This record gives sequence, C-alpha cells and structure tokens, in this order.
Amino acid sequence: MARKVIPLGERVVVKPVSAEEVRKSGLIMPDTAREKPEQGKVVAVGRGRMTESGKLIPLDLKVGDKVLFTKYTGQEWREDNEDYLIVRESDILTKLR
Amino acid sequence: MARKVIPLGERVVVKPVSAEEVRKSGLIMPDTAREKPEQGKVVAVGRGRMTESGKLIPLDLKVGDKVLFTKYTGQEWREDNEDYLIVRESDILTKLR
Amino acid sequence: MARKVIPLGERVVVKPVSAEEVRKSGLIMPDTAREKPEQGKVVAVGRGRMTESGKLIPLDLKVGDKVLFTKYTGQEWREDNEDYLIVRESDILTKLR
Amino acid sequence: MARKVIPLGERVVVKPVSAEEVRKSGLIMPDTAREKPEQGKVVAVGRGRMTESGKLIPLDLKVGDKVLFTKYTGQEWREDNEDYLIVRESDILTKLR
Amino acid sequence: MARKVIPLGERVVVKPVSAEEVRKSGLIMPDTAREKPEQGKVVAVGRGRMTESGKLIPLDLKVGDKVLFTKYTGQEWREDNEDYLIVRESDILTKLR
Amino acid sequence: MARKVIPLGERVVVKPVSAEEVRKSGLIMPDTAREKPEQGKVVAVGRGRMTESGKLIPLDLKVGDKVLFTKYTGQEWREDNEDYLIVRESDILTKLR
Amino acid sequence: MARKVIPLGERVVVKPVSAEEVRKSGLIMPDTAREKPEQGKVVAVGRGRMTESGKLIPLDLKVGDKVLFTKYTGQEWREDNEDYLIVRESDILTKLR
Repeated sequence: MARKVIPLGERVVVKPVSAEEVRKSGLIMPDTAREKPEQGKVVAVGRGRMTESGKLIPLDLKVGDKVLFTKYTGQEWREDNEDYLIVRESDILTKLR
Repeated sequence: MARKVIPLGERVVVKPVSAEEVRKSGLIMPDTAREKPEQGKVVAVGRGRMTESGKLIPLDLKVGDKVLFTKYTGQEWREDNEDYLIVRESDILTKLR
Repeated sequence: MARKVIPLGERVVVKPVSAEEVRKSGLIMPDTAREKPEQGKVVAVGRGRMTESGKLIPLDLKVGDKVLFTKYTGQEWREDNEDYLIVRESDILTKLR
Repeated sequence: MARKVIPLGERVVVKPVSAEEVRKSGLIMPDTAREKPEQGKVVAVGRGRMTESGKLIPLDLKVGDKVLFTKYTGQEWREDNEDYLIVRESDILTKLR
Repeated sequence: MARKVIPLGERVVVKPVSAEEVRKSGLIMPDTAREKPEQGKVVAVGRGRMTESGKLIPLDLKVGDKVLFTKYTGQEWREDNEDYLIVRESDILTKLR
Repeated sequence: MARKVIPLGERVVVKPVSAEEVRKSGLIMPDTAREKPEQGKVVAVGRGRMTESGKLIPLDLKVGDKVLFTKYTGQEWREDNEDYLIVRESDILTKLR
Repeated sequence: MARKVIPLGERVVVKPVSAEEVRKSGLIMPDTAREKPEQGKVVAVGRGRMTESGKLIPLDLKVGDKVLFTKYTGQEWREDNEDYLIVRESDILTKLR
C-alpha cells in the first residue's frame, strides 16, 4: 500500500475511506451546512516538522492511524490502482479509535 | 459520548448545546447585531499546542468543561446519532461555571 | 455580575457602559469622523497570554478596571438580563482613572 | 490634561496640535500629493511592549514629547472639553525638538 | 545534467518526468477534480535553509531523489536542450522509492 | 537642516535630491517600465530597531549618507522651507559612494 | 562597474545579461507558459541579513557570481550609461557555473 511514497517534513499519506465503507462502518456524516471532514487511514508519515530553531518535531500520527481530515485538502497520488492523498498533519483533525 | 475521536494538537471536540437546552438553562443570547457565541460541552481534548521551540503546551480545557465558542467555527462529526464539533481551543472564548 | 464566564487566555469580559451612563459621567465622545472607542468595566479576566516559548504572561487588566475599547469588537454574552462583551486584552485601548 | 486615561501596552495618548497652532509655530506642511503627518504632544504613555519572550520593552516616548504621527491613525478620546488621540508608539514617526 | 545551476538556500533543481515517461512507469495520476502533483528527479540542491536564529538546516533531498511536487510551481531553466524547474524544497511533497 | 526631527526606531529622515541636482550629478535614471528609486541624503537617524528579544540593533545608515530609496515611500516633513521625507531604513535600497 | 552603490542589508546589485548575450551563451530560455528567470552578474552585495535575534548572516552571493533571478523583480539603477538592478538575495534563484 503506497510503498513508493516517502512524505517530506510534516506531510502524511492517507488512504481515504470510501463513502461505501463509511456507510458500512455506521459513521455517517450529518447532512448540514457546516463543513464535514473526510475519513481515511494513514499509510506513510514524514519525519516531522523542522522548527525555526532547527529542532525536528516528530509527527503525532503513525502508520495505521485512522483519521478525520479537512475536506478538499491535499494532493492526489495513485499507485497500484489505489488513490491516496498527500496532506499536512496540521490538516488532520482527529484520530479515530 | 464521542468515544471514537482523539483530537490532534490544540483541537477539542465539543457537544453543542441545543437552542432548546439553552432556553431551559435561562442563558438567553441577546437579539442584537453583534456576533453571538454558541454554547457547548467539551467531550475530548488534544494533547496541546507544540510551539516553535518544540515545547508542548497543554490545553486549558478539560473534558466536561462547559464553554462558549465562536459561531460557525469548526467541523462537524457525528457518532452514535449525536452531532459534535471539532474546534481549536483558540476559538473557545470562555469556560462557563 | 457575569459570575458564570471564565475567559480563556488573553480574553476579558467587559460590561459596556450605556450611552446614558456615559452622558451622566460627563465623558462625552466627540462627534467627528474618526473612530470612537466604547467604555466599559472589566468583570472577568483570563489567566494570560501564552507565548511561543511557553511562558504565561498575565494580563495587565484586573476585575474592576474601567476601560476604553475598540468599537464593534468582541462577542456578546447575556447573563441575568445583563449584556456583556468578550474581548481580547489587545482590543482594550486604555484604562480609565 | 487627560488625567483619566492610562494607555495599555505600547499605546500613547497624544494631544493633537491644531492647524492654528501649527501655523503660528511656522512648521507648515507642504501642499503635495504625499501623505503628511500630524503634530501633537504626548500626554500619557503605556508601560511598554511585551515581547514574545515575555520581556517588557519600555516605550521611547515620554510625557511632554512633541511628536509627528501618521495621519488618520488612532482613536479619539474627549476629556474636559479637549480632544485626544490614542495611538500606538509604532505610528509615531519622530519626536520634535 | 544541469551542471550549470547551483541553487541558493532551500531551492532545488528538478528535471520533470514527461507524461510519456510517467505512462511507461505505470504511475498514472487519477483523472479527478483534485490538484495533482508532478513527478521529477532532483539534479541539484541548495545548501539549506537559514533560520531566524542563524542556523543552517540542510535539505532533506539529495541529488538523484525522485520526487512529487506541486503542479505549476517553480521557475523554468533550460540547459543543453533540457528543461528544468527551480523549486523550493517546501513545494516538494514526497520522495518516491 | 531638519534640526527639529528626531526619528523613532528604525526611521531616518532624508533630504531628497531634486531632479535638477540629479541631472547635474550625471546619475540619470533610465526611462523604462521598472520602478525607479529616488536619491537623497540622510539628515537624521533613529536609534535602531528593537527586536522581539528586546535587543536594540543600531541602524546601518549615518547622517550624511547618500542613499537610493523606494519611490513614493515615506511621509513628508517641511522645516525652514525645505522638504524632507521620513522613511524606514528598510525602504533604503543602497548607499551611494 | 556600479562603483557608486553599496547595497543595504540583504540586497545585491545585479548587471542583467542582455537577450543578445544570452543568445550567444547558448542558454536559451524555453518558450512556455511558466515564469522564466532572468540572468545577470552580481556587482555589489550588502553586508547580510540581520535576524530577529540580532545576528548578522552574511550573504551567500559574492561579487562576480553569475545568477538567475525572478523576472520583473528589483529596482533599476543607471550608472555610467549601464543599467543595473537592486534585488534582494531571496529573489536570486541560483548561481550559474
């Protein structure tokens, strides 16, 4: 799964969960005016954020984490017929248990 | 209550208080032109804000805190038929006793 | 007075002084084109501003301070039939003796 | 003179010099397209600017300083029938000997 | 290959992979509405990013790295009949194995 | 010359060189589309720039320096029938030998 | 060559290479939609960038360096019938061997 990509810095690669899978999981997004996040699974993480003082801060996320992330964010990547998104950790809202 | 979500960084998950509950509580918002905050209850908090110097600053808020927050902020999350909002602590205005 | 709200961070809660009270106090705002501040009294203060280096800087203001603040700023809060404003200390221009 | 106001932070209170007084002083502003500053006298100063590292940097200006400041800046304040302006020290361009 | 250019600071020089080569490699970008990154190979790197504290942080990327980068980014450079792009490392999304 | 003004912070007072004087000096600006700087002479300098860490960094410029500065920048000041400009040192492009 | 100008801070003075010279050098810019940099030679450099912590970081560039820089950047300077550009080092993309 997305074995080719090594995210830089504070980026992570996420496999979005399809609407079908979301429906099955029983995690239905409300049908309202507010912005709704997307669900996905982290498949690769960068080595962290480099601060202005030159300190590397490792990411919070680990491969395998299920996450909610801001809709319409990130850039697409396709590998072995699967679609992925490359997003910044700061666009990840929450982990999901 | 929202057992599934683990907010990242300085985010918190809030259960908004319905207009009905607000009315019952006697905390009525004034009917004026200024922006009015919403009320809610914190149900999950992130581990804190990571500063540029790589220091983790824990959040002020704790699970159970009643809060006022900026209207129209945050992203929606639904779990077990309940609606939640994922917001940044900096969008929380005050705690409520 | 506003016993319910505990401001977060660098926020304060202000009880605006009505136009009537301002008139009585003899502190009349000039009738010109420039922006005019509003008057009020601080009824609650946050614990301070957290800097990037993780240091808590207490607010300048204390409960009871009379203040001038930027017009149209802040968010409204009503409690026990009284209107309050939640504003950032940085929107407070001066204290009043 | 403006005994009531105590500026917060890096703010100062300035008593603008009227066009009449400017004319008498012989300091006439040129009649060109460029922006022209206003003249005034400092009547109150804040305790200084708090930096991100939590250090208080006192203001350059002292009560009694004559100054030039950016036109149309600041907020008005009237006390004892006199008009004042509340401005940030950073909007003060120069002192005047 | 691009022997003439020595990138400054956090810039790198990338040889973009042509659509033809991408097709051959089997790495096909999905045909959707989201923004899609471009592929390329790093042919030169700057000496790093100089922080505000005067510390030089070397780049993550090395000459020879295959990368994905934000589309429409960078400035063009032609040498020996080959086209290159000069981009900031922060516009590089991931390395590719 | 401009004995009255004492610039604050990183500001300097410049006596612009007239088009007439520029012509005589043989330093003619090209007649092209790009923005062209103005010439002048520094007649007063502020005590320096105060950094976020509370350190005073003295200005590069000294009284008497001939300079090029960004056109249309600064604020006008007239004294003893002479026009001056109050500009930030950061708007000064170069000194002139 | 441009003996009169002494750039301030992180600025450098560049003698642009004419289209004629570029053609002769064999370094032809591609005729595409992307932004194309200009070529030039550094004839003067500032003493460096002063950081927020008051540290002077010398420039990367030296007099004599051949460079590529962002098009339409900088301000013009003419001396001894030659045109120069005053640009910030951060607008210089690469050195050229």
